[in-house]
Amino acid sequence: MTIIRQFQPDDWAQVWPMLQATFATGDTYAFAPDSSESDIYRAWIELPQATYVAAAGDGAILGTYYLKPNQVGLGNHVCNCGYVVAAAAQGQGIARAMCEHSQTEAIAQGFRAMQFNLVVSTNERAVRLWQGLGFQIVGMLPGAFRHVRLGYVDAFVMFKQLVD
Amino acid sequence: MTIIRQFQPDDWAQVWPMLQATFATGDTYAFAPDSSESDIYRAWIELPQATYVAAAGDGAILGTYYLKPNQVGLGNHVCNCGYVVAAAAQGQGIARAMCEHSQTEAIAQGFRAMQFNLVVSTNERAVRLWQGLGFQIVGMLPGAFRHVRLGYVDAFVMFKQLVD
Repeated sequence: MTIIRQFQPDDWAQVWPMLQATFATGDTYAFAPDSSESDIYRAWIELPQATYVAAAGDGAILGTYYLKPNQVGLGNHVCNCGYVVAAAAQGQGIARAMCEHSQTEAIAQGFRAMQFNLVVSTNERAVRLWQGLGFQIVGMLPGAFRHVRLGYVDAFVMFKQLVD
Repeated sequence: MTIIRQFQPDDWAQVWPMLQATFATGDTYAFAPDSSESDIYRAWIELPQATYVAAAGDGAILGTYYLKPNQVGLGNHVCNCGYVVAAAAQGQGIARAMCEHSQTEAIAQGFRAMQFNLVVSTNERAVRLWQGLGFQIVGMLPGAFRHVRLGYVDAFVMFKQLVD
């Protein structure tokens, strides 16, 4: 059985290769395909308010996500998350489970809404998944993502109110 | 005559009170009204790629803006700027001049577009100014700004393509 729990330092040995492989594709995340391990450690572990992993019963890490305020100060009631699933664990509902977990965590930590700032428009599976989980496309950024194969493609801003 | 030039360390003595007074109003920028000087120095001077000031002939600083990539890696062709004008220099076209200057600088530095992430909807003068300068509202973030007097108000994402 898979559980979602807080990231622990020992997890990095599994989390980094998963993040590296994901960002290397250059089709879903802004992080440069050749991002260094230290840059990603800072972005995924140090800067966010919290980081989580989805762990299988045997200890294998299947996915990870971070949670942080999307803005400082007077915008810090809206959070932002990023989710990555291991290639070998695609199609098992891990992203959905992490997103649902993150919404519960966000509310518990006092956030009122969640925002994704750069959802690549060609990543249709992700767009549909977030829509199915109640996120709306509230903005369209023309050519804002430099897709490694497709060139400049549009990106969406997606948003979900978590509390009334 | 007013010139716009790169920020120099000596400018901070005039820039900080201007930023502090602006953020203290809690109606235009996300920075907390009681932000510390060191936090703002980091956000306005250290983190951005470049910071500029609008300086009068007598050396008085009338305004300041920063320029930085809005995203890392595959999103770093879109820049982000923030502009602040001294209370005593409002209505003289300083914000407009800085925004025009920033677009020229952005193009020179290789950016293709400019994005504002959290334009407070009730800051109608700013919204109209940016629209007049060619920015479009490409997104609407419901309740994303915690206005100190009005409570939760909507914020806009605004965007301008700088090069074709």
